[in-house]
Amino acid sequence: MPKKVDHRERRTQIADALMRVAAEQGLEAVSLRHVAAEAGVSAGMVQHYFRTKDEMMTFAMDVVKDRNEARVTAAIAALGPDPDPRQLLRTFLGTLLPLGDDSRADGRVALAFLAYKAVRPTTAPQLREETAQMVSFLGSLLPGNDETAAAGLLALMEGLGMYLLGGQYTDEQALAALDTQLDRLFKATDRS
Amino acid sequence: MPKKVDHRERRTQIADALMRVAAEQGLEAVSLRHVAAEAGVSAGMVQHYFRTKDEMMTFAMDVVKDRNEARVTAAIAALGPDPDPRQLLRTFLGTLLPLGDDSRADGRVALAFLAYKAVRPTTAPQLREETAQMVSFLGSLLPGNDETAAAGLLALMEGLGMYLLGGQYTDEQALAALDTQLDRLFKATDRS
Repeated sequence: MPKKVDHRERRTQIADALMRVAAEQGLEAVSLRHVAAEAGVSAGMVQHYFRTKDEMMTFAMDVVKDRNEARVTAAIAALGPDPDPRQLLRTFLGTLLPLGDDSRADGRVALAFLAYKAVRPTTAPQLREETAQMVSFLGSLLPGNDETAAAGLLALMEGLGMYLLGGQYTDEQALAALDTQLDRLFKATDRS
Repeated sequence: MPKKVDHRERRTQIADALMRVAAEQGLEAVSLRHVAAEAGVSAGMVQHYFRTKDEMMTFAMDVVKDRNEARVTAAIAALGPDPDPRQLLRTFLGTLLPLGDDSRADGRVALAFLAYKAVRPTTAPQLREETAQMVSFLGSLLPGNDETAAAGLLALMEGLGMYLLGGQYTDEQALAALDTQLDRLFKATDRS
């Protein structure tokens, strides 16, 4: 089935070009024309796989989500058996912070995606659902299953990520802010 | 001097159109063509006042900063004489959260601006300086002049703002997360 193989290869080639444009020039620079130039194909060929800018951006965000999931899974596996809740939270949130080059590139895509979605509230339900699941998961690891603290912790992580990407905070500052917050949350009810 | 008056009026007209395009369609939609159409003038006329997209975006962000400053100043004035540090912090951060329609529109511009700047690190020094000043100011209001806690608090506010704009958090959720964090920070060293 040579046609099917070509199709998959071409799609991967275009998707890779899309991710490079998004990471280097910003997600707002993603267009049929830019992606076609980067992939070395025609705009019509790009349009065969991604019909609109919205489809391209959603695809880019899905790639970033998959990569983040893989990073988190690997980092948690590296903790060994039976990590405690604080370790799990620290690993989870710390891994999602854009500290290395790869995760900074992905973080820029995610930030641009959120900025793009913020003016298109019709697409919010899925984001809302994903965030609610995340808050619930984080809450389950916190003393007292505290979902308000979990919502704050997730927002703290997003804000730190934003300031890391903008260069306003250093890696050390961001990690110190995350660690002291975890200390605070775990000490508050630690009566041992 | 009729020419000078025309000039100022025209500039205001174009600047208003720019802010409407940014708030309604997203900052990434800001272009000579879009702004010209919204203002009902030629693209050449827009270019006379704003030469590049970067100039337009920086202008939009400056307008948002001025409006935020005015909102914060008014809210703090309304506290009356001698507000305590916690009240000041709550008013300051709560006013910067995108809760009303106007501040949501401004928040979308700010979020898009940060996403845009995140791929252009050469422009970071000014942002870094402004953020450092903000952290220092917030720290001065916290028990123990705690700058790490202040950096976390500012990031929390940004993250809450992002989730408010994306519709992931409700107003109530965001304010609860802010208030419980302030409780935590002020209780930690409250030995009265």
